[in-house]
Amino acid sequence: MIDGSILIGQGTRRSEESFRAYDPATGAVVGPGFSIASTQDVADACALAADAAEAFGSLGPTVRAAFIEAVADAITAIGDVLIETAMAETGLPRARLEGERGRTIGQLQLSASVVRQGDWLDATLDSALPERVPPRPALRRMNRPVGPAAVFGASNFPLAFSVAGGDTASAFAAGCPVVVKGHSAHPGTGELVARAVQKAVAACGLPEGVFSYLPGKSHELGAALVADPRIKAVGFTGSRGGGLHLVDIARKRKEPIPVYAEMSSVNPVIILPGALAGRGIELAGAFSSSLTLGAGQFCTNPGTIVAVDGPALDIFVGAAADALAGVEPATMLNSGIAEAYREGVAALDRNPAVERASDIHGASHNRCAPALFDTTAEAYVRDASIREEVFGSAAIVVRCRDLAEVAATVSAMEGQLTATIHMDDGDMEAAQALSPLLADKVGRLVNGWPTGVEVTHAMVHGGPFPATSDTRSTSVGPLAIARFLRPVCFQNLPEEMLPPALRDGNPWRLSRRIDGELRAPAVATQPNA
Amino acid sequence: MIDGSILIGQGTRRSEESFRAYDPATGAVVGPGFSIASTQDVADACALAADAAEAFGSLGPTVRAAFIEAVADAITAIGDVLIETAMAETGLPRARLEGERGRTIGQLQLSASVVRQGDWLDATLDSALPERVPPRPALRRMNRPVGPAAVFGASNFPLAFSVAGGDTASAFAAGCPVVVKGHSAHPGTGELVARAVQKAVAACGLPEGVFSYLPGKSHELGAALVADPRIKAVGFTGSRGGGLHLVDIARKRKEPIPVYAEMSSVNPVIILPGALAGRGIELAGAFSSSLTLGAGQFCTNPGTIVAVDGPALDIFVGAAADALAGVEPATMLNSGIAEAYREGVAALDRNPAVERASDIHGASHNRCAPALFDTTAEAYVRDASIREEVFGSAAIVVRCRDLAEVAATVSAMEGQLTATIHMDDGDMEAAQALSPLLADKVGRLVNGWPTGVEVTHAMVHGGPFPATSDTRSTSVGPLAIARFLRPVCFQNLPEEMLPPALRDGNPWRLSRRIDGELRAPAVATQPNA
Repeated sequence: MIDGSILIGQGTRRSEESFRAYDPATGAVVGPGFSIASTQDVADACALAADAAEAFGSLGPTVRAAFIEAVADAITAIGDVLIETAMAETGLPRARLEGERGRTIGQLQLSASVVRQGDWLDATLDSALPERVPPRPALRRMNRPVGPAAVFGASNFPLAFSVAGGDTASAFAAGCPVVVKGHSAHPGTGELVARAVQKAVAACGLPEGVFSYLPGKSHELGAALVADPRIKAVGFTGSRGGGLHLVDIARKRKEPIPVYAEMSSVNPVIILPGALAGRGIELAGAFSSSLTLGAGQFCTNPGTIVAVDGPALDIFVGAAADALAGVEPATMLNSGIAEAYREGVAALDRNPAVERASDIHGASHNRCAPALFDTTAEAYVRDASIREEVFGSAAIVVRCRDLAEVAATVSAMEGQLTATIHMDDGDMEAAQALSPLLADKVGRLVNGWPTGVEVTHAMVHGGPFPATSDTRSTSVGPLAIARFLRPVCFQNLPEEMLPPALRDGNPWRLSRRIDGELRAPAVATQPNA
Repeated sequence: MIDGSILIGQGTRRSEESFRAYDPATGAVVGPGFSIASTQDVADACALAADAAEAFGSLGPTVRAAFIEAVADAITAIGDVLIETAMAETGLPRARLEGERGRTIGQLQLSASVVRQGDWLDATLDSALPERVPPRPALRRMNRPVGPAAVFGASNFPLAFSVAGGDTASAFAAGCPVVVKGHSAHPGTGELVARAVQKAVAACGLPEGVFSYLPGKSHELGAALVADPRIKAVGFTGSRGGGLHLVDIARKRKEPIPVYAEMSSVNPVIILPGALAGRGIELAGAFSSSLTLGAGQFCTNPGTIVAVDGPALDIFVGAAADALAGVEPATMLNSGIAEAYREGVAALDRNPAVERASDIHGASHNRCAPALFDTTAEAYVRDASIREEVFGSAAIVVRCRDLAEVAATVSAMEGQLTATIHMDDGDMEAAQALSPLLADKVGRLVNGWPTGVEVTHAMVHGGPFPATSDTRSTSVGPLAIARFLRPVCFQNLPEEMLPPALRDGNPWRLSRRIDGELRAPAVATQPNA
């Protein structure tokens, strides 16, 4: 079932050279040699995508929703080999991967339901005013897909943020063909999912260019994909360096395009004095669990604890260190990530303004131990290197003299995916004072722990730079579809030239804003086209 | 009333050096010496704006709407001196400027009504699911202002796209303080409007940093404003070079920010065979009017005519040349724009693949004559210089062998604000075939003429690069507010910490999306907070 192919539309190709996948726990080779897509493969995939864009983009909501559901079904149909392959390639445990598969399918199903519902089209009609001087023409606006999208798989979610993850689900929902650059750390998993998508395209009778899959290892492959003039938007989850590289390529194009890169976040956790005094030990245990979940390889991993210094904080730090001492070192996703983690921990160890707060033991090969550090707000604000993300289960406690210094610490931070406040009743005033400051820095403000990104309408998995490259976007939830849409106005067009979403009879039965007022469709007498 | 001041919050300042405004029709000096804002002025204005951001951004819809209406009223209260000053500084006629003032006030009033209505907040609530394993927390999302915005006035609309134009109206609507870099060609007009906004801020009891006005001539002033770390978004209407310069500064910041630059468009007009044969002479007259409106100084000026070659096109071109011969040369906005127009016309004149199709006569000083050129689709597709915008009343006719070459001509074009199709009954098939191709290139597809940008809900004054620097945006209409907003999710927050838009009782009486379903507010018992 996995033969290391490149998938271009409905075709498969092999390259002469190949690369291998490795089990990060053992270093053993997993699966066959995987083909390396060439610049010609990129060009061919993009040409097919461009050919498919108009037909796919103008499908009715019901048809496109059915396709997205077919993708979800095809992933389910892969069966257990998908979980086994992902386990071998990523070192993640079965339960985690089964959960992630459920989430991936759930994302696709939610996207399909949102597509079918149709509000994302933002159909808006302003009537002609022929009596006005000068007469006002009829104006009608809707969202249209931007065109073919490039999607880059992330290493840390081999299913939910990879080949048919959130970026692909939302690009498909918007009506954009997708060309995926597969992540080289899980190419077998990627190929299984890609073949499922390829099958769904065929089963739904869609133009083959709706989906292509380009495995490979080099930065040049991704660069060529983003530079291709037929690509109109890019979705990426990964490192800050990787994301900024793609942003740079995209803006140097003859036609610059948006790159939606989700990159870097230390996800500050503010523990207010009442909560710290009242349940510091309990919080320390929950913190340890959140920090070490999935070997700390979550974008929303709580990497920075900010609190007012004192005995209660000492107790929290001690209890957290104890809890972390009980956590077995965990296999990281690949040797590059493990190496970067060890380097990040070593850099904090070398920093004279930072102290180790936990025992780090038992690490070996790609298994890394959690690490807790301790510093002062003064040092944290002064030294940008302390504020950098260490991807994995490392965190730093920032000791503040008072609540004013807590605010100063938050102010020194860059943009974040999340910030968390832990508060008890006596903390309300402090929490209210900090809340706008935190909301300005993040995509999501949490009372609880930041890990666990729900796929719902209200979710924002985004935030100011460098959390993402576009602060107005989210990569999770139905709002993610907006990244792949743009508004177009049709002025005074005859009925036959209008897209169905804007025609007089409202054939797609959409809620539409008419002369400023949102109106629900009349009761349906037949299903959407 | 006009003394050449810099307005920083509620304060006024003068610089030692100053610059002058000139009547473009006569070259005479108009008004006093105008101060030149310094980098210190920029820093002070931005500091005040940052101070005001939280208070202004969290105002209830009714209060902020009242402020925007107060701005509109204050502009009305300036009286005729505003029109007279603008006439002297721009050479635009009274009727045009009175119309533009009406539009400016209308934009503000529409923004206010949209703010009051509240849908722009996109309030979205997902219920907690405590029984789920693991339990789902309550998630609530809304749009928040991005923070202080920099707005650059445009020369060609001294009111509607300047100090209190569409960018300022939409930034205010979003809840962003505004720092305006005034355009140096109409500093008296700018100051009058800026003083009106300053008064409205005071009258409404808002923090003074909600608005500042920085006159000046240099690129350094604008560059310093965009580079200031407290500025979070930029609105700009002007040249491609100017817009791209700001984009470049914005992306090189430590925290890159979005620049919404509306820049460059030749606004192709496709005349299909039936329309050309049936009413070529009528179309030629209307084309002449649209091309020469406001001395051709509209962003949506119809600069390129695309049609199938033949006797009907010869008749159209001849009739257009005749109509243009009857149009008096018109004073352009300033000597720089007039010079650029003359250079653009001369470059087309020098191009061996381009022929003159109209007599160009009567030009003098800043008065420029309309110009019509003629070329082949082959030359147009081959030579990018022919496709460049000549700002002013110059247009080129592109002669195509057949409809396939019309499509090829459209395909060769860059992104545009508008495209126009003229069609008669027999043209429907061709129009339908071209329509998706055109929709991919533009923000607005018109059956008619592109000049006349209505300020309504369905308007899109935007488009793919280089029409704008952000293809998902419009600078006209309520959707323009979205440029200054970003979504933030609040997870599991106690009621007291939630913004009013997301609280249980729906105190702002918004339509909110609850568990995926959009729900209108219950009948209001009291007005919005």
